[in-house]
Amino acid sequence: MPVIDESARGFYVISATPFTDDGAMDWTSTDRLMDFYLDCGSDGITILGMMGEAQKLSQEESAAFVARVMKRVGSRVPVVVGVTSAGFRLMGDLARHSMDLGAAGVMVSGTSALRTDDQVYAYVESVVRELGPEIPVVVQDYPQVSNVCLSPALVNRLFADFPTLKVLKHEEAPGLRKISKLRAAESSGSRKRRISILVGNGGLHLMQELARGIDGAMTGFAFPEGLVEVIRRWFADDRDAAEDIYDAYLPVIRHENQIGLGLALRKETLCRRGVIACARARAPGPALDADDQAELTHLLDRLERAKARLGIALPPLLMAGG
Amino acid sequence: MPVIDESARGFYVISATPFTDDGAMDWTSTDRLMDFYLDCGSDGITILGMMGEAQKLSQEESAAFVARVMKRVGSRVPVVVGVTSAGFRLMGDLARHSMDLGAAGVMVSGTSALRTDDQVYAYVESVVRELGPEIPVVVQDYPQVSNVCLSPALVNRLFADFPTLKVLKHEEAPGLRKISKLRAAESSGSRKRRISILVGNGGLHLMQELARGIDGAMTGFAFPEGLVEVIRRWFADDRDAAEDIYDAYLPVIRHENQIGLGLALRKETLCRRGVIACARARAPGPALDADDQAELTHLLDRLERAKARLGIALPPLLMAGG
Amino acid sequence: MPVIDESARGFYVISATPFTDDGAMDWTSTDRLMDFYLDCGSDGITILGMMGEAQKLSQEESAAFVARVMKRVGSRVPVVVGVTSAGFRLMGDLARHSMDLGAAGVMVSGTSALRTDDQVYAYVESVVRELGPEIPVVVQDYPQVSNVCLSPALVNRLFADFPTLKVLKHEEAPGLRKISKLRAAESSGSRKRRISILVGNGGLHLMQELARGIDGAMTGFAFPEGLVEVIRRWFADDRDAAEDIYDAYLPVIRHENQIGLGLALRKETLCRRGVIACARARAPGPALDADDQAELTHLLDRLERAKARLGIALPPLLMAGG
Amino acid sequence: MPVIDESARGFYVISATPFTDDGAMDWTSTDRLMDFYLDCGSDGITILGMMGEAQKLSQEESAAFVARVMKRVGSRVPVVVGVTSAGFRLMGDLARHSMDLGAAGVMVSGTSALRTDDQVYAYVESVVRELGPEIPVVVQDYPQVSNVCLSPALVNRLFADFPTLKVLKHEEAPGLRKISKLRAAESSGSRKRRISILVGNGGLHLMQELARGIDGAMTGFAFPEGLVEVIRRWFADDRDAAEDIYDAYLPVIRHENQIGLGLALRKETLCRRGVIACARARAPGPALDADDQAELTHLLDRLERAKARLGIALPPLLMAGG
Repeated sequence: MPVIDESARGFYVISATPFTDDGAMDWTSTDRLMDFYLDCGSDGITILGMMGEAQKLSQEESAAFVARVMKRVGSRVPVVVGVTSAGFRLMGDLARHSMDLGAAGVMVSGTSALRTDDQVYAYVESVVRELGPEIPVVVQDYPQVSNVCLSPALVNRLFADFPTLKVLKHEEAPGLRKISKLRAAESSGSRKRRISILVGNGGLHLMQELARGIDGAMTGFAFPEGLVEVIRRWFADDRDAAEDIYDAYLPVIRHENQIGLGLALRKETLCRRGVIACARARAPGPALDADDQAELTHLLDRLERAKARLGIALPPLLMAGG
Repeated sequence: MPVIDESARGFYVISATPFTDDGAMDWTSTDRLMDFYLDCGSDGITILGMMGEAQKLSQEESAAFVARVMKRVGSRVPVVVGVTSAGFRLMGDLARHSMDLGAAGVMVSGTSALRTDDQVYAYVESVVRELGPEIPVVVQDYPQVSNVCLSPALVNRLFADFPTLKVLKHEEAPGLRKISKLRAAESSGSRKRRISILVGNGGLHLMQELARGIDGAMTGFAFPEGLVEVIRRWFADDRDAAEDIYDAYLPVIRHENQIGLGLALRKETLCRRGVIACARARAPGPALDADDQAELTHLLDRLERAKARLGIALPPLLMAGG
Repeated sequence: MPVIDESARGFYVISATPFTDDGAMDWTSTDRLMDFYLDCGSDGITILGMMGEAQKLSQEESAAFVARVMKRVGSRVPVVVGVTSAGFRLMGDLARHSMDLGAAGVMVSGTSALRTDDQVYAYVESVVRELGPEIPVVVQDYPQVSNVCLSPALVNRLFADFPTLKVLKHEEAPGLRKISKLRAAESSGSRKRRISILVGNGGLHLMQELARGIDGAMTGFAFPEGLVEVIRRWFADDRDAAEDIYDAYLPVIRHENQIGLGLALRKETLCRRGVIACARARAPGPALDADDQAELTHLLDRLERAKARLGIALPPLLMAGG
Repeated sequence: MPVIDESARGFYVISATPFTDDGAMDWTSTDRLMDFYLDCGSDGITILGMMGEAQKLSQEESAAFVARVMKRVGSRVPVVVGVTSAGFRLMGDLARHSMDLGAAGVMVSGTSALRTDDQVYAYVESVVRELGPEIPVVVQDYPQVSNVCLSPALVNRLFADFPTLKVLKHEEAPGLRKISKLRAAESSGSRKRRISILVGNGGLHLMQELARGIDGAMTGFAFPEGLVEVIRRWFADDRDAAEDIYDAYLPVIRHENQIGLGLALRKETLCRRGVIACARARAPGPALDADDQAELTHLLDRLERAKARLGIALPPLLMAGG
């Protein structure tokens, strides 16, 4: 099975976790969602992240979700499993279970009690020790939610000292300079290892981030095929077209980028596109009201018109509902 | 089995969760810890709170811990179970399991995303709906950790509207005026129901809080017999003696009141007193170094001298290790 | 002189404060900046806000800046003065000075110690008392920076109880539903008074906000003529064109929306457009490096192309540098 | 005139700023307050800190307060001036003014936007550059209010690199281990320079901090003579007596340690002791109600009894009102 390493590149989609109307795991939608992500051209799939409502699943449900996804996806693309937990024992159990089933790596975020560089370092050191020398790790860097800030110097120190760290999921905002500094540490040789940098925040600053040297995105945007196309064209040096396509999606990217509500918007969009059967998030979670629905409809209509106006061939929408 | 209601009074101890050296559940120490809490004269026992490292236990371990405690304690004193969870489904499952086994109620805290009064209200409303009309609830009010603030007006509104809320575990700090305002709302009749107010924060302002009308404390102080005695004397109108005893314990109360480290200090003290076999907290968790140990030893020695100097009969220390 | 009231509408620009290379007040640029804002068609000008670096000016400089601006702008459009201060005495002094010179009102934000609805209410009540019955007030609602959250219910309560509050500068994010709720309180009659709602956040969600009933924007976007046009067309029921124009500006709007760096980006853009002589912010403040400059150049080039592509007549750029 | 350096030791009192009933500067009380602090045996006086309500004073008032204090105190003890400001220009102006009048150094705190070690380092570097090579600096380390955390490694780095930094005002809590680590860096030679460490937090953990190697305290406790005595006896190796005296004051120390309200409690105590004429804090600020007053009376009565019980000669209370 593939494992992730510092060459990870392209578009990794952050997966939702589909539920039925009564809040149970929806396995049929799970299968369809994986097929959809693959059909969109995703280069990898990350499950059980924040967008996957991981913290509202029981350990049993999480383990079963990993198993179901691995069975459906197989070795076609790498699957990364979010394993952040308040306890390292629980984190380790899920990580080992996932790797046994063929996952390509795990993703870990900090906890809000961490403040200084040394506190973060000690935390990551303990995480790495718990996970052992075999499990590749994506470090999620999302201070808007985790309240943990990683300076470029600290990222360099962590990745230099702990070889199992492979990818930085960079979603500090603002965070453009951080990317430049991280790449400068490679070109100057002050950090020996290359690292993969995949950005989050729904891709809100993707074009600037690409220009500064990232390897791609890891985000739950509900039109993965759009960002797949943007990133492919960028790396094929078709940069103007990449930006034009990006700008067509920007109003929706920006709209999804609402902390809390974003999850509901993405699940609703996936539901409208025919991918998942039910847009429901588990309680306590956001839900759209009639105004939110009408607003989304308007934005999606404008997206269709903007795509039509582009005059650039895009892959057809994959679902009848699209 | 007893259930808690608005007459809850006295000293409710917040229980530690004992682990073995390799981090497994330590059932023998669990039994001994419950015996100790009962021997100390505790009026109630609260398990799986923050001090109980609840968030580092699997759902299975939590359920087993509740079962073990209920079997040992039986109906001798009310047992309250902390059930706060990122997901209401998980919270409800543990609550129903606990009540089925004879728990007296559950304790719930807010989550850090809640900011305005209306957001907190909506959250509590959903919690109450999930728990149903039969399960009595302790509302934990601990903004230093949860980042959720409950104004007196909001507490009044919540307890007026939701009859299953019975006890406020008050540990906002500073929070003395809040107690006066909550009691004033009862004497003026602006809130119809009485509520029980039990304070936390290790009892750091207990005498002032008693003077302002609380019903007692709910805290994990490692010398429960001390606060039991203070509270009994206070309500027996032997207030000078209550204060003198309190002041003897104050240096240790204050020392335990260090966020993060407090858990390690309490487990170490319980270990030294012969109650639990191992002071270890699960990772990631605090541990004492040699300086911390020496400092604790010095404070406990001074506590013994201060108690001796009091000239007021205190119940003998319950453990050989004491 | 005009004063603001609940009918405030359109585009109020948040003004920068121009400095010379050595950090002194730049009065020539100040005059030119005011002329520019007026030429852009701004419906009002707000000075000494966060973007105006108010907290880095001495009381003497602030007072002189107000005087200079009032002299230049006169009664052509309302001028609102940010007066937020750690002390009410200082706040009141600046407010009275400003009104004496012809300001149309003042803007006040909360301070980070405020948590509950009642704490915010008491704070605003004290502010209103200090300012007296004559001074119209814009309430700045910007929790991302102030850490103070105003629920719709609290906004209703404040504006119902304090008649000098006229405008809500709404920049909570996400905050779309809040607008709908505030307007619903008017149509249902649960709040008797209408209020003006002007949005901030650089206009990042402006079209959605307009659809939900706001009166306009109050923001420091460096292309005021763009948002002036968007808002005019919207209220002239030329909504498709409004959205198309908006979307052309969106990449720059989104790029400016970087907390901290945004100020430097806006000053640099104003400097490139020939409006102010020096882009420098006072220390400690952000400054652009070569990468940031190149990135901005690229975005502004694309903005020009997007505007050209629109095929909708836009007012010509006002400055040679544009 | 004396300047502070790394040998600063003993008890530095943090001064209140006295106001008249109508909120004006009270110069008579200012003089009396300085006399009181000197009579108490203070080894230094720090003015215009948070307890001095510096942020509610105009620049003119601050400058006048420094002048008045310097005239009264002269060269008898070092006077440190808090100069923290949102703008470095304002900070530098007050610092230079203070040094010209004979101040012994300035105190600077971080601002809440600083998160990573490198951000704090860059901030301090800029502060040091603004203040120049002649002005000795006390670094205030108070994350509970400033939201800025300094790890031991970062403190070492800062004090190693910037020779004008002389004293760490340490009030992180919990923060006992930090002291041990900072001292270990000296004994191991990993930091070449000694630094002075004076603790704040009202002295809440003073005895533990002394045992771990601090040089004294810098705090606004309303009974300076008590902490002066504790610290003198500690350094005279009369440690048991030092602890006994400390424990007598502990209930009041702990009571004052209420963020926000503490200022009102201290000013009221100073007022009751006859030192300042009016306990009023400038708006927005805390004020005591009848319950708070009665509570304070009770605690101060118990303090008198505890001191009487000590049987250790304490200097007589210095004021008729005491």
